Amino acid sequence: MNNQQIVYRPIGIIHSEHTIAEKTPIQPVYARGCKGRVEVFEEFQDGLCDLDEFSHIYLIYHFNQAPPVKLKVKPFLQDVERGIFAVRAPGRPNSIGLSVVELIRIEGRILYVDGLDILDGTPLLDIKPYTAKFDLHNVKKNGWQDDVDHKTAEKRGKRGY
Amino acid sequence: MNNQQIVYRPIGIIHSEHTIAEKTPIQPVYARGCKGRVEVFEEFQDGLCDLDEFSHIYLIYHFNQAPPVKLKVKPFLQDVERGIFAVRAPGRPNSIGLSVVELIRIEGRILYVDGLDILDGTPLLDIKPYTAKFDLHNVKKNGWQDDVDHKTAEKRGKRGY
Repeated sequence: MNNQQIVYRPIGIIHSEHTIAEKTPIQPVYARGCKGRVEVFEEFQDGLCDLDEFSHIYLIYHFNQAPPVKLKVKPFLQDVERGIFAVRAPGRPNSIGLSVVELIRIEGRILYVDGLDILDGTPLLDIKPYTAKFDLHNVKKNGWQDDVDHKTAEKRGKRGY
Repeated sequence: MNNQQIVYRPIGIIHSEHTIAEKTPIQPVYARGCKGRVEVFEEFQDGLCDLDEFSHIYLIYHFNQAPPVKLKVKPFLQDVERGIFAVRAPGRPNSIGLSVVELIRIEGRILYVDGLDILDGTPLLDIKPYTAKFDLHNVKKNGWQDDVDHKTAEKRGKRGY
C-alpha cells in the first residue's frame, strides 16, 4: 500500500488577507477577526445546501506552500523538536491542512468566514460541519502543549497579527 | 485550478473490527469501546515522537470503499436529503475521512486507539493532535443536527454496534 497514489482535486479556493507564511496565524483560535472568503467551484455548489445553518465548519485543504517534509520539527509555540504527527505544522508527509472556522454567511458559492489562519490562494479539498454532537471531546492530555502557558501561546500563535 | 491533481500516499493503514460498511458506527462518539490499531509505515515512525502524550488525535484517511459521489445525500441520522458538505458521509467529491479517536498507547509504530468508526484496511493519510487549545469551539448552531434528538442519534449512529 506504501506506493499507492491517492488523487484529489481542489473543490475551491481560499481567499484570505494572509500572503506571507511567516506572518500567518497558526490556528483559527489565534486568527479571530481574520475574515475571508472560501470560494467553492460551480460544479460543487449544490453540495453547500443546508451548510449555512452551522456556526462552525472544518476546512480541509492542501498546504501548497508547505516547506520540505521533516519528521521532526519545532512547533510554532515551542522551541523543542517534536514528531511531525504531534504538531500541526505544514511540512508533513501529506500536506493536508485542517482548520475549524466560524461560518458567517453563504452567498451562492461563496462562504464568508472568520478565524482564517490559511494563506491566500490555498486549494480547498473538503468542507465538513463541526458539531457539538461529533466534535467536542473530553481532552485529558495535551502533550507538549500543556507546558505552553496561555500568554506565550497567544503571542507566538498570532505571529504579529 | 479545477483540474489540478493533488497526489497523496498512505502513511499507514487502519486495522479495526469493522468489515461491513453498513454496520460501522458513523462517528467515534457512537463507537466507544471499538478498539483497534493504527499501523504507521516504518519510514514515518520518527514522526510519532511525543504523540503518546496526547489523549485524543485526529485520524485523516481515505474512504477507499466510498459509494459514488453525490452532492445531496441523506445523512445517517436523518431521512432528509442534505448537501454533502453539510454532512460527514463518505461519498464526497474528495473522499477524505476525519475521526477524533482516543489514543490509548503507542508501541513502536502501532497506535492502540478507542472509538474507531473506520473500516478495516482503510489507508491513513495523516495524524494530528486534537488539543484543548486548538479544537474546542463554542458551537452555536448545529444545522439539521439540532433537530435530531439524543436517543435517535445514539441508535442510528451506532448502526447496531
